[in-house]
Amino acid sequence: MARDQLHLNLFILGCGHHKAAWRHPASAAERLGDIRYYEELARIAERGKLDAVFFADSMATGSVEDGFYWHLEPLTALSAISRATERIGLIGTVSSTFYTPFHAARLVASLDHISAGRMGWNLVTSMFDSEARNHNYKAMPDHAARYARAEEFVEAVLALWDSWQDDAIECDRQGRYADPAKVKKIHHHGEHFLVDGPLNLPRPPQGHPVLVQAGASEQGRDLAARYAEAIYAVAFDLEAAQQYYRDIKARVQAAGRHDPVPILPGLVTYVGSTEAEAKAKQRELDECLPVAASLRQLGLFIEQDCSDWELDAPVPELPPLEDFSGPQGRYATILRIVETEQPTLRELLGRLAAGGGHCTLVGTPESIADEMERWFRNEGADGFNLMPPSLPGGIEDFVDQVVPELQRRGLFRQEYQATTLRGHLGLERP
Amino acid sequence: MARDQLHLNLFILGCGHHKAAWRHPASAAERLGDIRYYEELARIAERGKLDAVFFADSMATGSVEDGFYWHLEPLTALSAISRATERIGLIGTVSSTFYTPFHAARLVASLDHISAGRMGWNLVTSMFDSEARNHNYKAMPDHAARYARAEEFVEAVLALWDSWQDDAIECDRQGRYADPAKVKKIHHHGEHFLVDGPLNLPRPPQGHPVLVQAGASEQGRDLAARYAEAIYAVAFDLEAAQQYYRDIKARVQAAGRHDPVPILPGLVTYVGSTEAEAKAKQRELDECLPVAASLRQLGLFIEQDCSDWELDAPVPELPPLEDFSGPQGRYATILRIVETEQPTLRELLGRLAAGGGHCTLVGTPESIADEMERWFRNEGADGFNLMPPSLPGGIEDFVDQVVPELQRRGLFRQEYQATTLRGHLGLERP
Repeated sequence: MARDQLHLNLFILGCGHHKAAWRHPASAAERLGDIRYYEELARIAERGKLDAVFFADSMATGSVEDGFYWHLEPLTALSAISRATERIGLIGTVSSTFYTPFHAARLVASLDHISAGRMGWNLVTSMFDSEARNHNYKAMPDHAARYARAEEFVEAVLALWDSWQDDAIECDRQGRYADPAKVKKIHHHGEHFLVDGPLNLPRPPQGHPVLVQAGASEQGRDLAARYAEAIYAVAFDLEAAQQYYRDIKARVQAAGRHDPVPILPGLVTYVGSTEAEAKAKQRELDECLPVAASLRQLGLFIEQDCSDWELDAPVPELPPLEDFSGPQGRYATILRIVETEQPTLRELLGRLAAGGGHCTLVGTPESIADEMERWFRNEGADGFNLMPPSLPGGIEDFVDQVVPELQRRGLFRQEYQATTLRGHLGLERP
Repeated sequence: MARDQLHLNLFILGCGHHKAAWRHPASAAERLGDIRYYEELARIAERGKLDAVFFADSMATGSVEDGFYWHLEPLTALSAISRATERIGLIGTVSSTFYTPFHAARLVASLDHISAGRMGWNLVTSMFDSEARNHNYKAMPDHAARYARAEEFVEAVLALWDSWQDDAIECDRQGRYADPAKVKKIHHHGEHFLVDGPLNLPRPPQGHPVLVQAGASEQGRDLAARYAEAIYAVAFDLEAAQQYYRDIKARVQAAGRHDPVPILPGLVTYVGSTEAEAKAKQRELDECLPVAASLRQLGLFIEQDCSDWELDAPVPELPPLEDFSGPQGRYATILRIVETEQPTLRELLGRLAAGGGHCTLVGTPESIADEMERWFRNEGADGFNLMPPSLPGGIEDFVDQVVPELQRRGLFRQEYQATTLRGHLGLERP
């Protein structure tokens, strides 16, 4: 299949990916438990012909005072959403550390049946002790142990999905319902799991629901290269995107695979009919941030007191990375934002509050499409995982303004060409 | 609340509770993976103002040749069904042996939010090694161990549901989203589970989704008496129903509880406008049974060869229970059917193929309502768990013919009086 079009996901999160979005007067903060809110978001994304909607997940509750977004459990929410939509893909997160492979295979397969082939599974290994301590662990197993378990988990899930042959069901009223020779135990007796099988559901419509992953570490990248059929990435700019993109594509090839494995970096957009309008939207959200708390947090990130810095003046010069003794990743992001954008302090706080490490584009549909195209044409991305700073406004802006521009350029579908998520992503049915 | 009305559930199972229902030419055998089929069944039940639809569950696949009904995973199916209905309750089965309390609490709470308070949880401990061997056990833990685990499981789930106070969310855009003093860890460190909490979802609309159970053993009855808010039962006739009913009600009282705890025996009905029409419906299904296989199975149950018995002649006399060396339960049921109904061999095979141990009523709406009323007025039942031999036909017959008769007698609601399952069942919100 020719790689001539972008793939686009909507990453659904609370009132949007800007931490203060819920504080906006028009936000949907009262509707986080209302399934109709999520259905509406998915319908907007489907109006824009997006490949899929996506729910991340966590197994613990953080601070509930500020910027905490709870959401419905992803798999139960996606089932309802599947009935409010017709074509868009549905990607849910399931942790290999906390589920058994049988539950995961079954829940996702059931959703693939319910949605007639639109389901994707975002495999995560989870990270936090607070999550582990909700599921019988005293602390999170270490990184290597989680990935070893994840690999065995994937093998067991794939085997369960294959435990019924596609043509196992005969439904012969005078004869038999299914051919027992085509419904087989898997006899998975591994280091972490014992799963006899077969699955108690026939093979999912897609064969395998699409396996999505976001591998950042060495082990994560290797696992993604061997199993993932689409990959979420974090890239601040094209250069970082290219490094990741080329590395993963090389690993995919080294693993002997010929699947396209689209790579989708996160993308935060503020869209306006003029640059000024886009900036005003960004400022409107940034102004919802509680200043004192945000400054306290920035102070922790950069390890200096900034409580008396001027909000609407440029950020004072910061020490170079090599002189910084705290956690490097976030500090490097802060330095890059300051260096490339010369933000005011308020703007910096806003950038950090809305997917700080991800590419952020503020501008007209044309300028945003330009940059997306540049990434697409230059080994930075096969598409994007959209992280609108506010919802539903941010995805409406994108769908109504940026999508038509991408369509004009021939970079995005005018209509769905397929009925399954696998079809949207150009993946073969296994 | 006055006990003046019946409670009715639809127990959804494949093409119906008659093992051969799928073989009927008009059966829905091709639609077992089609969510619209289950939505239709729920809408029929809602048209009849039933309290709830109910999915049983199993974690393993039996023989797929005959009488095997697979169904969509209950929780994902119920989410979709909740969006196709407005008032009817939704009861899903979750095994305490195979889930963690956090998953169970979260999935069911999420569904309670999605359905705006219509969710019930049927707690089972599961039974078969084939299920255990799909979830990391070499064999099923023994009965006592399963029930000890189940009790701790329920305690943890209830605590998680209570981990957010009802008024925890403030949603104050100038202040905080929620009051951290009202979102508490549960610190459950028991023998089987470590769960710190809090749940990552606010308190469910019902406070606690309704806890349903079907306790038959001593330990099961005790667990049900202490925690269940509605109970499924198996009773062949009123006498057996009364024994169970009185025993459970006494245990509930001994546990110091004042909840109504409705007891709902399973009920198989063949409804006709005349007795002959009802019998013809039964015969039509019975004739779908593959005779040789059914006789082989009966031979195993009664431990004698019956392959040359006459199909349409009365069943030959069987040795009394005390002379029978095999499993007693099913043999006793067979003896009772033969004794009370004097069936032909074909009729006996049919009875065993459709909820054999459950009360089976074949007749007019009036005669069926008579018997239901007799159980209701005489400490046999607070309602029934309907097990139509064929679906959707069997539930359409019940809803269109028996429900109006029950309504005429003032035994069943004309319209929903509540919006939650708890409300339908007359249960307080905890």
